[in-house]
Amino acid sequence: MKRRLAADAGAIQAQLDLVLGLFPPGPVTEGMGYATRGGKRIRGFLVMESARLHGVDAAAALWPACAIEALHAYSLVHDDLPAMDDDDLRRGQPTVHVRWDEATAVLVGDALQSLAFEMVSDPQTGLSAEVRAELTHTLARAAGGQGMVLGQARDIAAESAETPLTLDEIITLQEGKTGALIEWSATAGARMGRADPAPLLAYARALGLAFQIQDDVIDVTGDAAQVGKAVGKDAAAGKATFVSLLGLEGAKTRAATLVEIACDALSVYEARADGLRELARFVISRQS
Amino acid sequence: MKRRLAADAGAIQAQLDLVLGLFPPGPVTEGMGYATRGGKRIRGFLVMESARLHGVDAAAALWPACAIEALHAYSLVHDDLPAMDDDDLRRGQPTVHVRWDEATAVLVGDALQSLAFEMVSDPQTGLSAEVRAELTHTLARAAGGQGMVLGQARDIAAESAETPLTLDEIITLQEGKTGALIEWSATAGARMGRADPAPLLAYARALGLAFQIQDDVIDVTGDAAQVGKAVGKDAAAGKATFVSLLGLEGAKTRAATLVEIACDALSVYEARADGLRELARFVISRQS
Repeated sequence: MKRRLAADAGAIQAQLDLVLGLFPPGPVTEGMGYATRGGKRIRGFLVMESARLHGVDAAAALWPACAIEALHAYSLVHDDLPAMDDDDLRRGQPTVHVRWDEATAVLVGDALQSLAFEMVSDPQTGLSAEVRAELTHTLARAAGGQGMVLGQARDIAAESAETPLTLDEIITLQEGKTGALIEWSATAGARMGRADPAPLLAYARALGLAFQIQDDVIDVTGDAAQVGKAVGKDAAAGKATFVSLLGLEGAKTRAATLVEIACDALSVYEARADGLRELARFVISRQS
Repeated sequence: MKRRLAADAGAIQAQLDLVLGLFPPGPVTEGMGYATRGGKRIRGFLVMESARLHGVDAAAALWPACAIEALHAYSLVHDDLPAMDDDDLRRGQPTVHVRWDEATAVLVGDALQSLAFEMVSDPQTGLSAEVRAELTHTLARAAGGQGMVLGQARDIAAESAETPLTLDEIITLQEGKTGALIEWSATAGARMGRADPAPLLAYARALGLAFQIQDDVIDVTGDAAQVGKAVGKDAAAGKATFVSLLGLEGAKTRAATLVEIACDALSVYEARADGLRELARFVISRQS
């Protein structure tokens, strides 16, 4: 799976480098390149693989794949800010506000969000205007105050709450924070291919939750050097997580069940969706 | 002119309130409403007036008008952050990070940027997918690392530079920081009406610069209570401005000349563009 992810990751990286190479030199452009380097590119892969599933041209799918990775990168840069999660390390490298400064990090995140919408709506994709407008609209909804930003706001509110979150509250929080972009990515191929996105949406809902449960597992079992960012912060802060609520084994079992649900949701695609099934299994086996 | 601005501003406010009324309650949604209230709505008016000029339905034009005001509001919320311009007052009210906190201000800005792209690409506008995709793509370019964010980055870099900027450098900076969004707003009507945007682009280039010169004039001649934000900061910081480089009278003369250029650029529209000409004259007469 890592090899399949790496192949798409390489294409996404090359395209992002090409686009950013046309930007005027300066700290914001450098920071945008820095923040979009590395990572597993799971969201980008979901776009590419769901596009392949619907016979969409890979060269066209590369644009929304880059867009979602730019959007994800923006969210990480802003999440790492001192006023937010205050993290110094990301993907094994200093975070943008540490490497440059806070003002640059705010602007890098802002510009990466704009870049996401620039790329997803670009006529050079060869995608029809209908598809580009729909991808844009759904991405904006997934990213904003009813999606990812809402999840992030709930996460921050939880840190200062007097009582830890319940399981239902954590699930709702994660559906925004992580789930919304994963759902968009997995359904992008169906939207590009003008097919029903419902099976991919069901797959992505289960996958997104499994992904976040595994993140909580890694936060407890991983070490910072391998993970590339600080670990154990949630437990130290007394935050409710899937692991604190379900126990380590309970969390692992729940994630495995969700992966089975995700794989089953793709039955209509038969064996053609095995790449997406493999990804789902990879998501809960990863240690970083 | 103030009455004409107020009419469109009222429609824009009602539409933004309607859309945000559907968002889940919480500090980010509240902050989004707070940050989009007030202001002169010059960018929104440019969208509405250029749409009228091309016979575009006002109900359709309202969406991109709201989008540009949401985008402008995001840029103000982030510009006011302590790591950026560190301003406590905006439109006569506490800035978002003062009223709430920095994390909320980062998220409010982020969500407002998403909202801008959500609104400009919304199928409910009744605009064709071609128009929505083009408005999205051009807005993203105007907002991002080659447009507004680039101008903002240059502005921040100028503060710590050893030598003050030259006139050419300030003009380049302002073309990004203020000009890009004004150009997008003024040309939006032509894009919606599938007309040549060149005359409106020439108008907007001159208008944007006149607007920024007048901002520098107000920073010297205005008082905080009337302006609704801190004044005299640039002079106190020893920053090069149009006034420091051209003198107060020189700056006023330059702005007046630019307004004439802006008005002349609209000759193809004859008297039908008098609303836009009136706006240009208003821009250099305003004291806040």
